[in-house]
Amino acid sequence: MRRIRMIVAYDGTDYCGWQIQPNGMTIEEVLNEKLKKLTGEDIHVIGASRTDSGVHARGNVAVFDTESPIPPERMAYALNQKLPEDIVIVRSDEVPEDWHPRYQHDVRKTYEYHIYNAPVMDPLKRRYSTFVSFPLDVEQMRQGAAYLTGEHDFASFCNVRTNVESTVRKVEELEIRQSGRDITIRITGSGFLYNMVRIIAGTLIRAGRGFYTPEKVKEILEARERTEAGVTAPPEGLVLVEIRYGAQNMQSSEVHRR
Amino acid sequence: MRRIRMIVAYDGTDYCGWQIQPNGMTIEEVLNEKLKKLTGEDIHVIGASRTDSGVHARGNVAVFDTESPIPPERMAYALNQKLPEDIVIVRSDEVPEDWHPRYQHDVRKTYEYHIYNAPVMDPLKRRYSTFVSFPLDVEQMRQGAAYLTGEHDFASFCNVRTNVESTVRKVEELEIRQSGRDITIRITGSGFLYNMVRIIAGTLIRAGRGFYTPEKVKEILEARERTEAGVTAPPEGLVLVEIRYGAQNMQSSEVHRR
Repeated sequence: MRRIRMIVAYDGTDYCGWQIQPNGMTIEEVLNEKLKKLTGEDIHVIGASRTDSGVHARGNVAVFDTESPIPPERMAYALNQKLPEDIVIVRSDEVPEDWHPRYQHDVRKTYEYHIYNAPVMDPLKRRYSTFVSFPLDVEQMRQGAAYLTGEHDFASFCNVRTNVESTVRKVEELEIRQSGRDITIRITGSGFLYNMVRIIAGTLIRAGRGFYTPEKVKEILEARERTEAGVTAPPEGLVLVEIRYGAQNMQSSEVHRR
Repeated sequence: MRRIRMIVAYDGTDYCGWQIQPNGMTIEEVLNEKLKKLTGEDIHVIGASRTDSGVHARGNVAVFDTESPIPPERMAYALNQKLPEDIVIVRSDEVPEDWHPRYQHDVRKTYEYHIYNAPVMDPLKRRYSTFVSFPLDVEQMRQGAAYLTGEHDFASFCNVRTNVESTVRKVEELEIRQSGRDITIRITGSGFLYNMVRIIAGTLIRAGRGFYTPEKVKEILEARERTEAGVTAPPEGLVLVEIRYGAQNMQSSEVHRR
């Protein structure tokens, strides 16, 4: 038995998120089904990040155990032949059999939240950006964002449904880039609370509109109360860009899909 | 009776092109149907560019005649309330009743052809870029493209199904931009032959692969024979970016969709 690790990219538009659930198709379900077709085994993948319905990924990570003779590095190519075109295995390798994608020290995750800020929506951006029609002041957004970097109690930026021991997290980088009408919030940290990135995005959009002063973002953080922050921004703007595992990143080069 | 002009943007992925046809939904059909709902009249839009199945637009132009009391500049907003989210009216205005979007002097059209050049496809790019997995040499593509600017007989870059009086066209600008793994061929001219931009893209991709020397592009042009050029590149990479009508461009500012 070998444990195979995969970097998984997907367009989340047509999926009910990562995790298997009764009411719709999920990324996890498609991977299990196609791996069964490929190997003949009952395979259950374990994902690093159980992304929500409609959220995208360029670099989610998953593992599974198999007796298949397919070489670990070739698994990406073999599986891509069976997957629909909105799910792609970027690469694959072998890891120790106790390696778990959610229980590792020294993990860094990077997300991007994409906003299209223009008077009218561009239909070519609608699947991967959130449309904001009122003009956003990016400098105000940056000033508000500055209060969120570092280690803080992010209780105000955590969905109330969450049941976690601690709501303290460390945001290592939080950068806002503008290119024409595209605004990207890029955020890196060791871990995020449930809906944290989307609540930060919703709050910074309010700061960009002028509804909040940058200092209000600091007050929201200090209040440790979800009701203080802005709305959870919609899922289509969010992409899980990368998960880095300290010394245990993948070394193999990318495989070719075709 | 007034003639209304619209700038139309669409994600062509799920449409059988612009022009009404029996075997699938088209942009023209959706616009006629939604305009009928909006005005109660039997409306037939006339498009500037009858884009092919799967081709996108940020700036196609269409006109229609109506007795509707909706102010011409508000027509965009009103129609957007009824359109599916993959078709957006960017703006609207009134033009003289004999103004026709296809029969104007001093027209310039700009297209972009988008290529994603990487070992593995990015599922977030697949709808709007053509995937090329073998490395492309952009400098070779640029050298080949240089032979195509200016006025030439583009018979080699014209689908054989075309029945036009002359295959001479003038390419005013042909630029190739690279940003990471994204390569964009941007081309502007007064008019293009059927499939001309996609055959140019297919030919320049061959030059980028090293299948053609840049000088081979010149030979293909001079041969005036469709069979000499590269394959027609797929539709998903193509976007009609803009149509400019000399002095008769739209002056009104963009409307708000919501």
